[in-house]
Amino acid sequence: MFENTGRTEIASLGEFGLIEHLCKNITLHNSSTIKGVGDDAAIINHAAQQTVLSTDLLLEGVHFDLAYVPLKHLGYKSIVVNLSDIYAMNAKPTQVLVSLGFSSRFSLEAVEELYAGMLLACNKYGVDLVGGDTSSSKQGLVISVTAVGILPEGASAVQRDTAKINDLICVSGDLGAAYMGLQILEREKQVFLANPQMQPELAGFDYIIERQLKPEARRDLVDLLAEIAVLPTAMIDVSDGLASELIHLSKSSKLGCTIYEEKIPIDPVTINAARDFNLDPSMCALNGGEDYELLFTVSQSDFEKIKGQISFSIIGHMTDEASGSVMVSKNEKVYPLKAQGWNAFGGN
Amino acid sequence: MFENTGRTEIASLGEFGLIEHLCKNITLHNSSTIKGVGDDAAIINHAAQQTVLSTDLLLEGVHFDLAYVPLKHLGYKSIVVNLSDIYAMNAKPTQVLVSLGFSSRFSLEAVEELYAGMLLACNKYGVDLVGGDTSSSKQGLVISVTAVGILPEGASAVQRDTAKINDLICVSGDLGAAYMGLQILEREKQVFLANPQMQPELAGFDYIIERQLKPEARRDLVDLLAEIAVLPTAMIDVSDGLASELIHLSKSSKLGCTIYEEKIPIDPVTINAARDFNLDPSMCALNGGEDYELLFTVSQSDFEKIKGQISFSIIGHMTDEASGSVMVSKNEKVYPLKAQGWNAFGGN
Repeated sequence: MFENTGRTEIASLGEFGLIEHLCKNITLHNSSTIKGVGDDAAIINHAAQQTVLSTDLLLEGVHFDLAYVPLKHLGYKSIVVNLSDIYAMNAKPTQVLVSLGFSSRFSLEAVEELYAGMLLACNKYGVDLVGGDTSSSKQGLVISVTAVGILPEGASAVQRDTAKINDLICVSGDLGAAYMGLQILEREKQVFLANPQMQPELAGFDYIIERQLKPEARRDLVDLLAEIAVLPTAMIDVSDGLASELIHLSKSSKLGCTIYEEKIPIDPVTINAARDFNLDPSMCALNGGEDYELLFTVSQSDFEKIKGQISFSIIGHMTDEASGSVMVSKNEKVYPLKAQGWNAFGGN
Repeated sequence: MFENTGRTEIASLGEFGLIEHLCKNITLHNSSTIKGVGDDAAIINHAAQQTVLSTDLLLEGVHFDLAYVPLKHLGYKSIVVNLSDIYAMNAKPTQVLVSLGFSSRFSLEAVEELYAGMLLACNKYGVDLVGGDTSSSKQGLVISVTAVGILPEGASAVQRDTAKINDLICVSGDLGAAYMGLQILEREKQVFLANPQMQPELAGFDYIIERQLKPEARRDLVDLLAEIAVLPTAMIDVSDGLASELIHLSKSSKLGCTIYEEKIPIDPVTINAARDFNLDPSMCALNGGEDYELLFTVSQSDFEKIKGQISFSIIGHMTDEASGSVMVSKNEKVYPLKAQGWNAFGGN
C-alpha cells in the first residue's frame, strides 16, 4: 500500500504545515458552520434547533489491524461509525472534529490516505470537518472522532429509553456481515503470514469484506422513516451486535423483548461464510457487531405504514420487564439474549 | 499511588457496568444539556446562540508521563486544557465529551482516580460531562476530550485572525512556569530511577509544579474583560509557548508583531528554577508551552480601560506584515521570533 508512493517525513512540514496541508481539501457543506479549522475552536450555529454530539475512539490493535485495513478505508469508516450514532438519534450529522495520533513510521503520504478517506465520507454525507488535533504517538495509530448533528426543525430526537410495551422491533439491512468479513480477512492474514507468496482468497466475499472495511451509515433509513411519517419510539445503532443493542434498548426502556431467530435478516454471503467457519449465522448476527444498522421500535398503530418495506425487517416486539430479553429459536425454544464478549469496552 | 487502594479488574464490571459506574457521580450544571451520557449521542440546546467546539488528544509518553503525574491531576488537566480553548474564543464552556483508552494494567480504581479529576474540573468550571467512549488499549493511556461552549447572548467570538495594526498585545498571568515545573519533575524522576531510596526535592517549587500538573483555564480573564467592557480584537491560548502563539496570531491576521523581552511576565520561582538548569527564563517563557494563559490584542483606544490591570501584562503591539514577528531584547537588539520544536505536532 505504501510502496507505490513517495515518502515524505511529517517532520519536514513543521507544525503549521501539516495541519494546513491536510486541511486544504476541506469543503464546507453546512451554513451552520460559521468557522471551521484554524482557530482555538470551531464555531457552529444551529439557531433554535437542538444539537446532538457523539464521540468514538479507534485504536490500532483493538479496533483495526493495519495488516489488512487500507488507510483510506479506515479514514472513511472512522467517520461513518460516528455518523451512525447521529442518525440513531433521528438527527442529521453536520460537523465532525478529528484527532489523530501517529508514530514516525507514518509518512505524510500515509496520513494523506487516511485523511482522504475521512474527507470522502464527509463529502458523501454532507458533513463539515471543522477541527481536531494532531499529535505524534509513541504507540500505534490513534483516531478520535466527534460528530455533531442537528435535529431538523420539527423532528424529535429518538432515544433508546423510550420504547413502549408491544412496540414492534425493527432492524435495517442485514446483520453479521461485517463480522464474517473480519473472519475472512483474519484468515487470509494468517495464510499470508505463513506463506507470503500466497495470494489472499477473497473472491465471492466482496460484500462482507466491504461491510467490514467500508461500512455505510443508514441516512437513507432516517429519510425513509420521515417520508412514510413513522417516528420510531426508540432507536439505537447496531455497533456491538444485535443482542447487546436489544438488551441496551430494553433495559433503558425498563422493558423486555422477544425476537424471532427466523426473522433476523442475514445475507446469503454471510451464511455461506459462516458455514465455512463452522459458525452459526444467527450467532454471528446476534454477537458479531460493526453492522452500523439501525435497530428501532415502532408503535403497533404504525404497522400499516411499515409493512412490506424492504429497507428493514420486523424481528419481534417489546414485552414487559419481567419477561426478560429473549429469542425464540427456529425450533421454537426460548433463549435469553446475552451481550457477548468485551468488545473494546463499548461506548455510546 | 496505586498501592494504597484495592484493585478491581475492569473486566469484572462488564460492558454496561463500567460506564454506569464511572458516570454515577456526574452532576449537570447547564440547562442547555438536554440529554447527557447514556444514548447514542448527547443532546444540547444552545437556543439562538452560537456553539464553539474544540478537541484535544493526550497520549501517554507524548503529553504525560505516569511516572510522576498522578492520575487525578491528569484527569483535571485533560479537561482544563480543552476549556482553555473555549475561553480563548471568548466563549463559556458548557459540555465535554471524554474518550478513554486504557490497557489491562489499569485497575478500576486507577480509572476512577482519572475520572474523579475530570469531574472535579467539570464541577469547578460548571461544565457537564455528556458523553464519550471507553476502550481497551494495546498501547498506553489515551485521553481524548471534546469541549463544547456557548457564546453568551451579545458576546462575540474572538478569533485569532482579526488583530489590527497597532493593537496592544497582552498576555494573562505569567509564562514558562509549567515548562520549568516539568524540568523539575523530570530531574527528580531521573534521580529516583538512579536511586529509588532518594526522596524527590520539590520544596520551593510548588508553584511551578502545580502549573505543570494542575493548570487552570483563565475563565476569570474572560469575565474581567467583559466587566471592563474590553472586547479583544484577537485571542489565542498559550499552549505551545508564547513565540509560537504570537506567530500564529500574527500570521493569521496577516500582520507582524513586536514584543519586549522586559515586559514578558515571568514568576520569580520560574526564574530561580531556570537558573538552576542554566536556562534563560525568557526562552522558557517564549518556547516552554503548557501555560494555558490567554494571549490577546486590544485596540489602542481601549488603553485607558486596561492600564493598571494586574491580571495581564501589555507586552508589545501589532505591526505591519513586512516588519515580521520580532522581540526587542533587554539589551535592545531585535530578534525574529521562532516557533521552536515540534511540540506533539500542535493542534487547535
